[in-house]
Amino acid sequence: MKREQSERIILGIDPGTTTTGYGLIRIAGVGPELVAIGLIDLSRFSDHYLKLKHIFDRVTGIIDEYQPCEMAIEAPFYGKNVQSMLKLGRAQGAAIAAALNRSVHVSEYAPRKIKMSITGRGAASKEQVASMLMNILKFGDMEMKLDATDGLAVALCHFYQSGAPSAEKTYHSWKDFLNRNPGRIKSR
Amino acid sequence: MKREQSERIILGIDPGTTTTGYGLIRIAGVGPELVAIGLIDLSRFSDHYLKLKHIFDRVTGIIDEYQPCEMAIEAPFYGKNVQSMLKLGRAQGAAIAAALNRSVHVSEYAPRKIKMSITGRGAASKEQVASMLMNILKFGDMEMKLDATDGLAVALCHFYQSGAPSAEKTYHSWKDFLNRNPGRIKSR
Repeated sequence: MKREQSERIILGIDPGTTTTGYGLIRIAGVGPELVAIGLIDLSRFSDHYLKLKHIFDRVTGIIDEYQPCEMAIEAPFYGKNVQSMLKLGRAQGAAIAAALNRSVHVSEYAPRKIKMSITGRGAASKEQVASMLMNILKFGDMEMKLDATDGLAVALCHFYQSGAPSAEKTYHSWKDFLNRNPGRIKSR
Repeated sequence: MKREQSERIILGIDPGTTTTGYGLIRIAGVGPELVAIGLIDLSRFSDHYLKLKHIFDRVTGIIDEYQPCEMAIEAPFYGKNVQSMLKLGRAQGAAIAAALNRSVHVSEYAPRKIKMSITGRGAASKEQVASMLMNILKFGDMEMKLDATDGLAVALCHFYQSGAPSAEKTYHSWKDFLNRNPGRIKSR
């Protein structure tokens, strides 16, 4: 994908082992614009490893196509039980590995933080978040499943949290991150 | 690494967010032989994503160097709490993604199963497992940390569980796995 020098593309992702929603926004000029929204369908894979491989491959493919410099993931801090958290952690790990392998910087946000950031209310429903997204990013009801809007929501949340395109917190590459955080790796 | 046509190399790994132990064994002729044993030290990274990137990169590097056809991971089913399981899941996800990205087939075993397989006792201590490994694989006390022997233990466990080199359960590549398991991916 061709893009302007000054624009910034953010990939948002909501990893899960049944479906993984994703959304991409472009920040250039006045405000955020919708680039793409979609669902990675994992229900056809009965094997847990095939699901993980598919997440890794699809996230890699999305990064190669849209060239985002940052990825934001929705990361719940609590789950039903340790088994479901282990599975969720693996799905997140596969998605995060795909991003880091392409030098894309990763951030994560709790669901409540994302809802608060988009709607001003941490307890907002998925429908309310989706409605607000359509309003802010100016797109119609595309009969998208709500899991896909979750991906878009975390991308927009990351934009709001990280501020302007030139914000100090934003890293445009792995090398950039290391250069600006020499203390994050301890020398031996 | 050069190797004989008939030999089979198994990578065993014990993913963790502080250290990740690994071991490689070669199955050729009479029985299993030690190829390598080591520790991926993650304590020098204070950033969680740097740890995950390092796990992904090191596992990829180990696979490229030793060309195993299978990877076995130690996978506890219970953890202290959901947060620790999420972190463990991410570490496992990064290691599994690295293997699947190189078409290496993945299996997992619970700690109790591994101990039972090596020592005949599911409640064996780490020291007893290490001592048995040195005996079976004929290597001396190399002052290895016990986390490294955990990686080797799961490699040997996988060999015992999967039987002879030509066992029906063993997949030598991703394509091989798909060909022999057409039902594992549902067609639409």
